Amino acid sequence: MPPLITLTTDFGLTDGFVGVLRGVILSIAPDAQIVDITHGIAPQQIQQGAFVLANSVPYFPRAAIHVCIVDPGVGSARRPIAIQVGETIFVAPDNGVISLAVAELSANETISPVAVQLDNPRYWLPRVSNTFHGRDIFAPVAAQLACGASLSELGTPVVSWTTLTTPAPDRRPDGALVGQVIYIDIYGNLVTNINPEQLDDFDTAKLCIQVGKRELRGLGRTYSDVAPGEIAALIGSPWKLEIARRDGNAAQALGVKLGDKVIVSPS
Amino acid sequence: MPPLITLTTDFGLTDGFVGVLRGVILSIAPDAQIVDITHGIAPQQIQQGAFVLANSVPYFPRAAIHVCIVDPGVGSARRPIAIQVGETIFVAPDNGVISLAVAELSANETISPVAVQLDNPRYWLPRVSNTFHGRDIFAPVAAQLACGASLSELGTPVVSWTTLTTPAPDRRPDGALVGQVIYIDIYGNLVTNINPEQLDDFDTAKLCIQVGKRELRGLGRTYSDVAPGEIAALIGSPWKLEIARRDGNAAQALGVKLGDKVIVSPS
Amino acid sequence: MPPLITLTTDFGLTDGFVGVLRGVILSIAPDAQIVDITHGIAPQQIQQGAFVLANSVPYFPRAAIHVCIVDPGVGSARRPIAIQVGETIFVAPDNGVISLAVAELSANETISPVAVQLDNPRYWLPRVSNTFHGRDIFAPVAAQLACGASLSELGTPVVSWTTLTTPAPDRRPDGALVGQVIYIDIYGNLVTNINPEQLDDFDTAKLCIQVGKRELRGLGRTYSDVAPGEIAALIGSPWKLEIARRDGNAAQALGVKLGDKVIVSPS
Repeated sequence: MPPLITLTTDFGLTDGFVGVLRGVILSIAPDAQIVDITHGIAPQQIQQGAFVLANSVPYFPRAAIHVCIVDPGVGSARRPIAIQVGETIFVAPDNGVISLAVAELSANETISPVAVQLDNPRYWLPRVSNTFHGRDIFAPVAAQLACGASLSELGTPVVSWTTLTTPAPDRRPDGALVGQVIYIDIYGNLVTNINPEQLDDFDTAKLCIQVGKRELRGLGRTYSDVAPGEIAALIGSPWKLEIARRDGNAAQALGVKLGDKVIVSPS
Repeated sequence: MPPLITLTTDFGLTDGFVGVLRGVILSIAPDAQIVDITHGIAPQQIQQGAFVLANSVPYFPRAAIHVCIVDPGVGSARRPIAIQVGETIFVAPDNGVISLAVAELSANETISPVAVQLDNPRYWLPRVSNTFHGRDIFAPVAAQLACGASLSELGTPVVSWTTLTTPAPDRRPDGALVGQVIYIDIYGNLVTNINPEQLDDFDTAKLCIQVGKRELRGLGRTYSDVAPGEIAALIGSPWKLEIARRDGNAAQALGVKLGDKVIVSPS
Repeated sequence: MPPLITLTTDFGLTDGFVGVLRGVILSIAPDAQIVDITHGIAPQQIQQGAFVLANSVPYFPRAAIHVCIVDPGVGSARRPIAIQVGETIFVAPDNGVISLAVAELSANETISPVAVQLDNPRYWLPRVSNTFHGRDIFAPVAAQLACGASLSELGTPVVSWTTLTTPAPDRRPDGALVGQVIYIDIYGNLVTNINPEQLDDFDTAKLCIQVGKRELRGLGRTYSDVAPGEIAALIGSPWKLEIARRDGNAAQALGVKLGDKVIVSPS
């Protein structure tokens, strides 16, 4: 099989930035299979990029090179790094954007991840800008990996890297679970940090969910469980408690934004 | 040749949804060639998805698997289906979104389409959500077809499916043709349901077209036939009567929306 | 290696136009590798398309077919053309959209570019519309080239074509350089027509840049050189003087638009 390289960035698709990444990769690794995860991460939103990558990577073949570029610190002291977890390699700025995906994959591996700082310029483009390391460092390094370069050739080993965490929900003395909105998708669905298992001891028909100024009763199964325009709570595709509006936008309807509280009470 | 899978959805490119579809497909069928038709169908607009698919599929190789996911009823009783027309296979929710393309291709085939309900969970992902059947059912089924699975393995045969129709224009007693706007593209061009053959008995220089509050005289050949900013009527690329504004947006300029009448009189 | 075809258009990704291009190409050249540079050129902005293409093409393998369709004159007398520069072939309407890239590549070649008008209908689709030559002429011609057709089969040789130029900055008697904004990217960064070499005789710490109503002092190295929200001047990734706002949009903050003056004084 041709080597698989995925791209996740905040570059958008309006300028030619993503096209240039593809050109650089194919110039070095002509048989690489390049797959976009998304280029629609909001500009410089590292946490959003980390969430999307961690939710996508488990659905890809293990033998893949994931390039993730959300890089507000480009050209500064932040390090470019590569981290290998089993057969999977991540290439990114060391700002935490790959850390959730690395943790996700590592949970199923017996071998610890290994990492290098990408400080060997032999694997970069000859002329390196201060503002587009995607083109000048990350893409050529990924392409070299696709051609069989080993991690150790690319730079100096490092033993730690920047990690983000997804905040865990709190349990109140009265048994209520206090979570928060950690992602809002294009439909306006509100993804929370509450896992289905954390609701195991709740009666799904009786539980009460507070979000924005609204109180919802009971956990639904799918969007169609409520009438058009109504708000539903359900377990969404990222396997988290999710608040959605049927045929509409829950974030707008409820005036809720990233980080807002979602409280689940037993009744 | 590697098997060809096309994707048409209303997922947008902002979240990682489309990336995940690609990951699922490549995990099962590593040599599949995945081609996007569009992910810009307006959310849950089945008729729009059906129109775009029916206009695109004829330009693809016959040996292709077309996955089309515009699925407001995801998780409800609506069935997931696959329909085969000659060498071409469609995979979609049974809500009509593939019906125009199926009809378009069937018109040139001597063999009737065959269809199955996708009810064999062996061909799905192990864990199926209630909100993202694209990932959990449609993508893995398409990948299995790319690997050589036959339609009959995927589920129970069905003999009918939901069909949409494109409304035909009416002929008035005075000979005028009363059509409507069936698609508005990104440029604001108004695509009608009037075919060129239906204008054969009109004098193209003299005919009169009413659209919005405007009356246009004569049928042009191309956008450049009128001055910048002017409105032109012509036969557009979907091979339908189309109203366009040179270097501008006809839908906005005329205040016309989907379903609005377009009346063609002989003079 | 499979033949490489890149696509650069103003089609957007909302309609199925780009999907149809891919379908046409794969119907003729099933093993072509199709790579998007961008489909986000602003509608009919030939100069923008030319700039993006000229900045992207140097990062691609030389053996490539670049299709560029920004075509306000589709269906009019403007000619469809193909131009070959060494191993690279461009396919486009003859309105200048490929001229900057052709000039860029030709600068490194000893052999002059050769060009043909695409007037041999044997290499087009059988039915040609007046509004979508991308589908009916440019895509099939590119696919035929990918299958090994030679330029000379595609039409009549031509010895000249429409060329655009990037305006050069002026040098004032007092030594100041008067340039202009030639591109604004999705982040609002202002790319000028001033090359780094033209600043060689300036003291980078002391030079003064006038842009909009703002005066900036000194040339930075990277975005992080200034505080969040501040304006920085630096050499950007297209290797031009660029004005950026850290974590923000310089075009909006400064009220600057395409063509506006940028004046660099020694102090």
